[in-house]
Amino acid sequence: MAPVRNARYIFTEVPEEYPEPGRHFRYDDSQIVDLESVSLDGGILVKTLVLSLDPYMRGRMRPPSKESYTNPFRIGESLSGYGVGVILRSEHEAYALGDHVTYVDIPHQEYFVVKPNPFLRKIPSDAGVPWSLFIGVLGMPGQTAYASWKEYAKPQKGQTVFVSTAAGAVGSFVVQLAKLDGMKVIASSGSDEKAAFTKECGADVSFNYKTTSTEEILQKEGPIDVYYDNVGGETLDLAFKYAAKNARFIECGMISIYNKPDKSYPFKHLMEIIGKQISVNGFLVFDLVPKWGKQFYEEMPRLVKEGKIKFQEDRSYGLDQIGEAFVAVQKGTNNGKKVVVVAED
Amino acid sequence: MAPVRNARYIFTEVPEEYPEPGRHFRYDDSQIVDLESVSLDGGILVKTLVLSLDPYMRGRMRPPSKESYTNPFRIGESLSGYGVGVILRSEHEAYALGDHVTYVDIPHQEYFVVKPNPFLRKIPSDAGVPWSLFIGVLGMPGQTAYASWKEYAKPQKGQTVFVSTAAGAVGSFVVQLAKLDGMKVIASSGSDEKAAFTKECGADVSFNYKTTSTEEILQKEGPIDVYYDNVGGETLDLAFKYAAKNARFIECGMISIYNKPDKSYPFKHLMEIIGKQISVNGFLVFDLVPKWGKQFYEEMPRLVKEGKIKFQEDRSYGLDQIGEAFVAVQKGTNNGKKVVVVAED
Repeated sequence: MAPVRNARYIFTEVPEEYPEPGRHFRYDDSQIVDLESVSLDGGILVKTLVLSLDPYMRGRMRPPSKESYTNPFRIGESLSGYGVGVILRSEHEAYALGDHVTYVDIPHQEYFVVKPNPFLRKIPSDAGVPWSLFIGVLGMPGQTAYASWKEYAKPQKGQTVFVSTAAGAVGSFVVQLAKLDGMKVIASSGSDEKAAFTKECGADVSFNYKTTSTEEILQKEGPIDVYYDNVGGETLDLAFKYAAKNARFIECGMISIYNKPDKSYPFKHLMEIIGKQISVNGFLVFDLVPKWGKQFYEEMPRLVKEGKIKFQEDRSYGLDQIGEAFVAVQKGTNNGKKVVVVAED
Repeated sequence: MAPVRNARYIFTEVPEEYPEPGRHFRYDDSQIVDLESVSLDGGILVKTLVLSLDPYMRGRMRPPSKESYTNPFRIGESLSGYGVGVILRSEHEAYALGDHVTYVDIPHQEYFVVKPNPFLRKIPSDAGVPWSLFIGVLGMPGQTAYASWKEYAKPQKGQTVFVSTAAGAVGSFVVQLAKLDGMKVIASSGSDEKAAFTKECGADVSFNYKTTSTEEILQKEGPIDVYYDNVGGETLDLAFKYAAKNARFIECGMISIYNKPDKSYPFKHLMEIIGKQISVNGFLVFDLVPKWGKQFYEEMPRLVKEGKIKFQEDRSYGLDQIGEAFVAVQKGTNNGKKVVVVAED
C-alpha cells in the first residue's frame, strides 16, 4: 500500500494575544506516512477521529523556557491535546485493531504512533454513546467538573453557587452537580443562547454577562457560598466582593487573562479573603482523578446514557479547522464542548 | 470622692489614606467620671492599664454603612481594641476588686464599665509575666499565629515558609512555630533591626525588603511551600510567582492596601493558583480560637515564661500617644508589638 497523506496542524509562532491561524499556527499537508510499514516499536498506530479544543491549551503556546504545569507546544511540530482515535495496527497485546482509545496528548495530525502508557485509555466497545463524549462530558472536562466539585465545593443544600462560563463543557456540568446537591445556581455565560442552555441545565438564575451586569446579579442573588471560576479577572474580583462568610472558591480556569500580554488584573476585593474567611483552591484534574476517577466512571456513563446529564457539543469538520476552533474556544464563540472531527470511524 | 478626669482618644473623621492625629482622631480630656457612684448595672468598673494597637484596627475607621467583619469606630466616640485593665469595683460575683482582665474591645479611655461577656477574660493572678503579654504573645496576636499555623500550614520538615512582616507580633511568632516544625524560614521585614530580630527568632534567611529585592530572595531561596501573608499586594503576587506545587497560603493581613484609597493591586501571578494547585486560606482568629485556644493556653504560657518564645514589645506611655502609636503600626515604624501604657498598676 502506498504512503498516504498525514496532514498536521502545526505551531509556528508564540502569540502575545489571541493566536491567528496562518500566522501562529497553520494547517500543513506536506507529510506522508506508510501505514503498513511505519515502525511501531511495541506501540500502536492510531487513526485520529476527533480532537478536543480546550481553554487550557492557550497556556501551551509559550516559549519553552517558561515553566508551567503543561508542556509547551514546539515550533514546527503538531499541536496536541485530548482526542479519540481508532487502532490501525498494534504491537501490544492489550490493544487490537479496531479498538478505540482516548489519549491526553494526541498530535493534531491524521495518524500517529504511540506507546502504551498510563494516559492511554481504551474506550469500552459497548459504550453506547458517541466517541466524542470521551473527550467531553465523559472525558477530561467532565472529570474536571466532577472531581473538583467533590473535592472542594462542600455543598450545602440551600446555599448559593455562582458558575462562570456556565454553558461550557465544565461549567454546564458543574451547574448540574450543584443542582443535584440542592444548591441555588447563578449561571453566567456569554450569549442569550448559552444562558438558555444553562437554564435547561437547571440554573436558577441564568444571564448573559455581555448584556447584563454581573455585579447587579450578584448583588441581588448573592451572597455566594461557592464560586466556580473559569474566567478570573473582573468576575473573580466581583465574586470576592459578593462572597458569603466561609465561601469556597474553586479555581478551574482564568480565560479572561490567557490572551492578555501582561496577564494582570487590578483586584480590589482580594482582602475579602480574610474578612470572609474564604478558601481559594486551585487544582489540576490530573491530580484529582486518582481520588475521584473511579466514582466518576461508576456514576456518570449511566447518567449520560440515560439522558440525565445535559451537554452540548460544537463540532467542526476537518483538521484544517483546528485554528478557527482553537480561537473560538479562547473567545467563547463556540456553543458547548468544541471538538474537531478529523475522520469518521 | 470627687469625680476624676476620664480622658479618651476619640475618632473624629474617616481617613482616605493614613489617619492623622488631630484630624481623624484626637486626644480629649473633657470628660469626667465618678468612680464611686458610676452605675455598674451588674457589671464591673475597670481602670485601663495597657492598650493594644493592631493593624486590623485601620479597617474600623470606615463609614458605618460599609460592611466588614469588624465594627466600625463611631465618630465622636472613643476608639477601642484589645487591652488589659484592673477592676476597681464589681457587681458580679465572678469578678473582684484588683482582678486583672483582658477584653477585645476596651474603649480607649482611662476608665470604663463593662458587663461580663464571653470576650472578657480574667488573667490568672499568678501569670508571672507582664500584663501586656496578654495582648501580645499570649493574647490575640499569639493566638492568631498559633491557630492559623495549626489549622492551615500543614508543615512538613524541610519545606520552606515565607513570612512577611516577620518581625511583627504575629510574624515573629510564626517564624518560631515554623522552626519548631523543622521548616526553612524566609523572613521579610522593614528594617535591618527587624531583620536581625527575625534572625534571633530562628529565621534561616532574614532580609529588609526596603533595601533587598524580595523577588531576588524568593528566586534564590524558594520555591515556597507556605506563605504567611500579612501584607498582600506586590509581596503576595511574588509569593504566587515563587510558590511550590501544592503551596498553602495563609492570609492573615494585607497591610499594604489598608491605607490605599482604592484598595487595588494589579496581580499578575494569580493564575499560579491553578497550575500549582495552591490553597489560599483567609481566617479570623475569633473563629479559630474555639478549636485551638485550649491547646494554645496549655503550651504557650509555659514556653513564654521559660523564655523559649522570643518577642519584642514597643511601648508608648500615655493615652495621648494613641494616635502616633496607631500610625506607627500602619506604617511599620514600630519595633515589635505596639502597646500604649495608660496607667501603671
